[in-house]
Amino acid sequence: MPHLLNGHSAIDIGLQDRGLQYGDGLFETIAVRRGRLEFWQQHMQRLQAGCRRLQIPCPDSRLLLAEARHLLQGRSEAVIKIIVTRGEGGRGYRAPEYTLARPNRIVSLYDWPDHPAANQRAGVAARICTTALGINPALAGIKHLNRLEQVLARSEWDDAHIHEGLMLDVHGHLIEATMSNVFFIKAGTLYTPDLANCGVAGIMRDVILDIARSGHIPCDIGHFSRADLEAADELFICNSLIGIWPLKQLEQYSFPAGPLTHQIINALDRARHEHAGHENI
Amino acid sequence: MPHLLNGHSAIDIGLQDRGLQYGDGLFETIAVRRGRLEFWQQHMQRLQAGCRRLQIPCPDSRLLLAEARHLLQGRSEAVIKIIVTRGEGGRGYRAPEYTLARPNRIVSLYDWPDHPAANQRAGVAARICTTALGINPALAGIKHLNRLEQVLARSEWDDAHIHEGLMLDVHGHLIEATMSNVFFIKAGTLYTPDLANCGVAGIMRDVILDIARSGHIPCDIGHFSRADLEAADELFICNSLIGIWPLKQLEQYSFPAGPLTHQIINALDRARHEHAGHENI
Repeated sequence: MPHLLNGHSAIDIGLQDRGLQYGDGLFETIAVRRGRLEFWQQHMQRLQAGCRRLQIPCPDSRLLLAEARHLLQGRSEAVIKIIVTRGEGGRGYRAPEYTLARPNRIVSLYDWPDHPAANQRAGVAARICTTALGINPALAGIKHLNRLEQVLARSEWDDAHIHEGLMLDVHGHLIEATMSNVFFIKAGTLYTPDLANCGVAGIMRDVILDIARSGHIPCDIGHFSRADLEAADELFICNSLIGIWPLKQLEQYSFPAGPLTHQIINALDRARHEHAGHENI
Repeated sequence: MPHLLNGHSAIDIGLQDRGLQYGDGLFETIAVRRGRLEFWQQHMQRLQAGCRRLQIPCPDSRLLLAEARHLLQGRSEAVIKIIVTRGEGGRGYRAPEYTLARPNRIVSLYDWPDHPAANQRAGVAARICTTALGINPALAGIKHLNRLEQVLARSEWDDAHIHEGLMLDVHGHLIEATMSNVFFIKAGTLYTPDLANCGVAGIMRDVILDIARSGHIPCDIGHFSRADLEAADELFICNSLIGIWPLKQLEQYSFPAGPLTHQIINALDRARHEHAGHENI
């Protein structure tokens, strides 16, 4: 797994980096398919929004793109992960002044995860995690490096037949899954949780909301409970790497990989082919 | 700032370390005074409790002690910071199996922070932060590496006359301060927030609760609001490095560094001299 740290090939980072000391940074996980960095512009916009929120100077996206391409060396399928930390600092939470900050940027190349095609066609099984997401509007939506809740939730099962764990917040509202966002369909309307209080606003979630809007599929972003999920007609999860996986099983409940889910999967395939937002436009 | 990584002198750590990738780890900050690692046993107990909670194999405390002493080289006043991460892992939140985990331990030496003696005698000024602490019982109490809430709270002010920022949870309950725990006194009773939902259970907080119990000072651990603080007779913050600092000013309210606070400060000085829980007992 090759990495570039601030443009230079590296395997290590300084022990004083605030990413390690406090999780003081952000990341993006980007699918590379057919040689293209999918939805690059959207990933850069979220990274910039996260940097604004944390007041970390954001690296130039052209620099990041050049570094990602350098690592890819023409590979057609892969994963690029970008981490931006606030850089080195002394002991103590106080961050260096914005104009003096020297953020560290890490661009890493990983193999494409070869998930079975059946995951998208027939769907996967998921569970509901007992680890709850804390409420914190100041950190909600951005993809920051404080991910212990997800680590704890993912440690709740090791059954290989269960692909994801859905997470509720401490009030019992459905928010997301450990590594993906969640949608459900009921009577022709597409529902997905509001992420104002917690959760990561996934790039694929936004792409799907755009697809639904341009396909005139009614959408509702709001607060939903476990009972809403159980009563759903169709259910699916999404992220930048998996695209969309229908959920065919959630705890003791079964769901069909129904028609609206497949309509959205097909529209997503077209969006990916049309290169909208990819880096080479 | 010298560091030992797994016993070896180091300045860097692997980019794949889950401490950097996810904040997947814990830390302790230990005061070294008169050549002794103060309250070493208590720090080790909290580290072990945190490792149990996160299911990270905890390094042997004798090894950590030997490494801390190696860095100290007889220095009498300093700070030792210990970080334990889950070690390296692939991309993805799933942790390596417990028996296969190879945690990384980092022992770092920092200079003793030379705070003016007046901070303890006359007290300091504090503010109330707008960054709220999220509710998460699964992470409450332990000193884990997900510290963005503290980083954001500490970034709210840069007035050098304000030494600390008190933090409420999202329900408006007082929890702690950015780098310290909070106590207040009303009509002879000592109050400190319950940390079952969020906050770090500081070693110094426990020491003070023990002092109060053995001095027959009535104590109440519970849920308190900003109004309770403002109506207090005395107010103080504590951590392992500062010991106890009375708060003489909180926003527009003034407080005396009153008699009960000074009684506890004196008892703490005796406890430090008696070496209770220090490493060389």
